[in-house]
Amino acid sequence: MRFLIIGGDAAGMSAASKAKRRAPDLDVVVLEQGMDVSYSACGMPYNIADSETGIDALVVRDADTFIHKNHIDLKLGHCAESIDPGAKIVRGMGPDDRPFTLAYDKLLIATGAGPVMPDIPGFDLQGVFPLKSLDHGRRIKHFIGVKNVQKAVIIGMGYVGLEMCEALRARGIEVAMVKPRPRLLPWMNPELVQAVSLELTKNRVAMHPGHAIDAITSHNGALRIECDTMALDADMVIVASGVRPNSRLARDAGLETGISDSISVDDQLRTSDPDIYSAGDCADAIHVVTGQRCWIPLALRANRAGWAVADNVCGVETRLDGVVGTAVFKLFALEIARTGLSPKEAVAAGFDPVEVVVKNNSKAHAQRGATTIYTAMTGDRNTGRLLGVQMVGEQGVAHRINAPAVALHNRMDVQGFFQTDFAYAPPFGPVWDPLLTAANQLLKKL
Amino acid sequence: MRFLIIGGDAAGMSAASKAKRRAPDLDVVVLEQGMDVSYSACGMPYNIADSETGIDALVVRDADTFIHKNHIDLKLGHCAESIDPGAKIVRGMGPDDRPFTLAYDKLLIATGAGPVMPDIPGFDLQGVFPLKSLDHGRRIKHFIGVKNVQKAVIIGMGYVGLEMCEALRARGIEVAMVKPRPRLLPWMNPELVQAVSLELTKNRVAMHPGHAIDAITSHNGALRIECDTMALDADMVIVASGVRPNSRLARDAGLETGISDSISVDDQLRTSDPDIYSAGDCADAIHVVTGQRCWIPLALRANRAGWAVADNVCGVETRLDGVVGTAVFKLFALEIARTGLSPKEAVAAGFDPVEVVVKNNSKAHAQRGATTIYTAMTGDRNTGRLLGVQMVGEQGVAHRINAPAVALHNRMDVQGFFQTDFAYAPPFGPVWDPLLTAANQLLKKL
Repeated sequence: MRFLIIGGDAAGMSAASKAKRRAPDLDVVVLEQGMDVSYSACGMPYNIADSETGIDALVVRDADTFIHKNHIDLKLGHCAESIDPGAKIVRGMGPDDRPFTLAYDKLLIATGAGPVMPDIPGFDLQGVFPLKSLDHGRRIKHFIGVKNVQKAVIIGMGYVGLEMCEALRARGIEVAMVKPRPRLLPWMNPELVQAVSLELTKNRVAMHPGHAIDAITSHNGALRIECDTMALDADMVIVASGVRPNSRLARDAGLETGISDSISVDDQLRTSDPDIYSAGDCADAIHVVTGQRCWIPLALRANRAGWAVADNVCGVETRLDGVVGTAVFKLFALEIARTGLSPKEAVAAGFDPVEVVVKNNSKAHAQRGATTIYTAMTGDRNTGRLLGVQMVGEQGVAHRINAPAVALHNRMDVQGFFQTDFAYAPPFGPVWDPLLTAANQLLKKL
Repeated sequence: MRFLIIGGDAAGMSAASKAKRRAPDLDVVVLEQGMDVSYSACGMPYNIADSETGIDALVVRDADTFIHKNHIDLKLGHCAESIDPGAKIVRGMGPDDRPFTLAYDKLLIATGAGPVMPDIPGFDLQGVFPLKSLDHGRRIKHFIGVKNVQKAVIIGMGYVGLEMCEALRARGIEVAMVKPRPRLLPWMNPELVQAVSLELTKNRVAMHPGHAIDAITSHNGALRIECDTMALDADMVIVASGVRPNSRLARDAGLETGISDSISVDDQLRTSDPDIYSAGDCADAIHVVTGQRCWIPLALRANRAGWAVADNVCGVETRLDGVVGTAVFKLFALEIARTGLSPKEAVAAGFDPVEVVVKNNSKAHAQRGATTIYTAMTGDRNTGRLLGVQMVGEQGVAHRINAPAVALHNRMDVQGFFQTDFAYAPPFGPVWDPLLTAANQLLKKL
C-alpha cells in the first residue's frame, strides 16, 4: 500500500515518520517542492536575530536521515500540480522539469500556508521578502549580511511581523512597521494592546498602523514604501501580511474547502474524499469553544494532525477533539498569549460576552523584581461559561495560558475555573494567581 | 450578629475582610494570640535571604488598617483557650493576663498549623528556631545578624527546610540538612529527586538524610546536633520537621477531627457544629482526585476557604470543590512543582497507577539557553484517568503545573489531556510541550 504525502513540513513529515513507525512495510512517499524538510519554521525570527548561527541550525532532521534511516521515499524538488481522486493519481513536475505521475492508496495533502503578497507594485523588488519557508529565512539573513542593512520596514503587525521586529532590532537595524488596518493586534483587549505598544516604543520601533500602501519603489537599491499620506525609506522590506492556506490543489480536485479557503476535514482529518486526508496549515479544525469550523494555522496542531493521519492510515482510528486557539509569542521583554475567543469572536459565535481586565504583580507581596501581568478574561453572560483569556507580561505568561486552555477543552464555567487549585510560591506569583483574580472579577459581572 | 474569628492569619483575616465587605453592619471580632496579622508567611525565607529589607515588609496590611479602615474588631494578644458550643461562648486570656469571655453567633476556627518540635533534648536552646510565625522569622533574622552566624543546620527537608536552605546560603551561611527518614522528598519520583539533589550539591549544601537526632547540645554558645552515627556543629539550628494542625481547641469543644488530626469540615467549611466553621491550615478538604478527606495546608486554600466562610456566614451559600494538592517551590535555580497524586498515594486511594518520566528541553530546537525539564506523570491503568504530575526544571515549571491541575479538577483522562491545545513559541518550549510528551508516553503504557 502506498501512502503519498504532498508537503514535507511539520504535518507531512510527522505523518510520514509516524506511519513508518506504525507500519515499517508501508510505502511512504513524500513530495516536497523545496529542498528543505523538517525545520523549525517558528524559530526563524530567533535565528535571524543571531548573526553567528547559520539558518540550517533550524533543521531538526535532514533529508538523508528520513530517506536512509527512516526509509521514507522523500522526493525533494517535486511539485505536485494536480490530483485525480478518481484514478487515485497525483501529477506534477520534478527537478529539471521532468513531469511525474504517482499513484496512491491514501493521500495526505499537507501543503501548508503561504504568505499573502499584496497585489501592489514593487512587492517583487530585490530586498522585499516574505518569511514563510526556510529559504526565505536564508535569503533574508544573507541580504542583511551582504547589504549591511541599516533600516527595515515590516509590512504587517501580526505574530510574524512582531517577532521579526524584535529579531531585526537585535541586529541593530532600525525598524518601522506599517499596515493598512488601524489597530495593532485587533483581537486583543485595548488595555493589553497599550502595554504591547509601550514595549514597542521602549524598543524604538516606529509604528504606522492605518496606512494603505500604494507601492514599493527602488532608487539605486534604496527602497521606498509609498503610503497614502507618507513614505518610509528602507534597505529591506519584510512582508508579514498574514498567510493563506495552500488549498488550490485540493479545490481543483473537487475537495471541499471552507473557512478562509482552508481544506475541510472531519475529526479523523479526512477530506470530502475518504482516501484523501489533509493536515497542517492548509486544513481547518473544529473550535472547541464555538463548535464551529475554524482556520488557526499553528505548529502544534500541524504535528498532532500529522500523527493522527498516520494512525488512521495505519488502521488505528484516531479522532481529534479540536482546538481552542492557544497561542503565545515573545516581543522583547514581553510574553503575549491568548486562548479561546475574544469578545468580538464570541459575539460572532452567538455568545453574550462579558470581559474584565486585571493588573497583577508577577510575584507575591514584598518580593523583589516583580513586574505587571495584564489579564483579560471573557465569559458568557447566559451560561457563565469561560470563553477566552488574553495575557501580557514580562514573566510567567507563556505557560500560564495553558491552564485556561485546559479549562476551555472541558467547557468549564468561570465559577468552576475560579475554584481550581493553583500552585503558589512567592517568587512565582501572588497567592491568588492573576487568572484566579480575573475569574473572581469576572464572576462579579456575570 | 457577631461573627467571631479565632486566628488572624490568612484564613481568619480573609474571612473578616470579606464579611465586612459583604455585610458592613456585621460585628466582626478577630482574636489573634500574637501581635502580627496579614503577613506573607510563605515569603519569610525570601525575606530572611535579604539582609537589607526588614521582616515587617512582609506585612500586607497592618492591624490599624483592619481596625480603623475596615472596622474589624481585631484583638491582638488574645489567646482563645476554650469554646463552649452549647452556650456559644469563647473563653481565653488577653494581654496582661486578663481573661475574657466572648459570645458568638457564628464562629470561625482559623488557628492554622504549628511547627512540629521533636520531643528531644535541646530543642529549647537559644539559637534553635522553628519557622512558622512572623515572630519566628523576626528572631531568626535578628539572630543571624547579631551572632554573625557562619554555620547552620536545618532539621527537616520539606518545602520550608529547602527554602530556608536557599535563604541561608544567600546570606553566605554554610548549611547542612539532616532528617531521620532516608529519602529526600519521598513523594517525588526518584529521577526528579536526583535532579534536586544535584542542585543542592552544586550549591554546596551538605545532605544527611536517614539520621535520627538524639539531642542538641550547647557548648559556649556553639550548638551540636548529636545524631545516631555522627554529629553536626552549628551556630544556629532551624527546625523544619513539618507542621501539624492547631486543632486542640476544636477537639476539646467536641468538634469532629480526622485526617492528620485536622478539623473536619464540609464543602461549606462547617464543622460538626453548624454554627462553627473552620478554614485554613487547621482544617481538612476533599481531595478531588481521590474523593477522600485530606490535609494539605497551603496558602491559596486558606484564603479561598476564608472567603467562602464569610460568604456562608453572610447568607451567600458557597461550596468549595476541594483541592488537588498543587504546590510549587523554588530551590536555587530550580522550580519544583506537583499536582495530584504520587504513585504511592494513588495506590493508597485504590488506583492502579502507572508512571512515566520524560526529559525535555525548556526551549525549542536550536534556541539558545535551553535547560532540562523533568516531568513525571501518573495515570490509572483501569480508567486511563490522569492522577498526578511532578515537574522539576530551571524554567517554566512553576506555571506549567496549573494546566494538569485544571485537568485533575475536570477528572480528565490522559488521552483527553494529551489532546489539549497548548501554546507554542520557540523561546518557551518545544512544539510538543513536556506535559504533552509525558502524556503521550504514558498513553503507550496504559
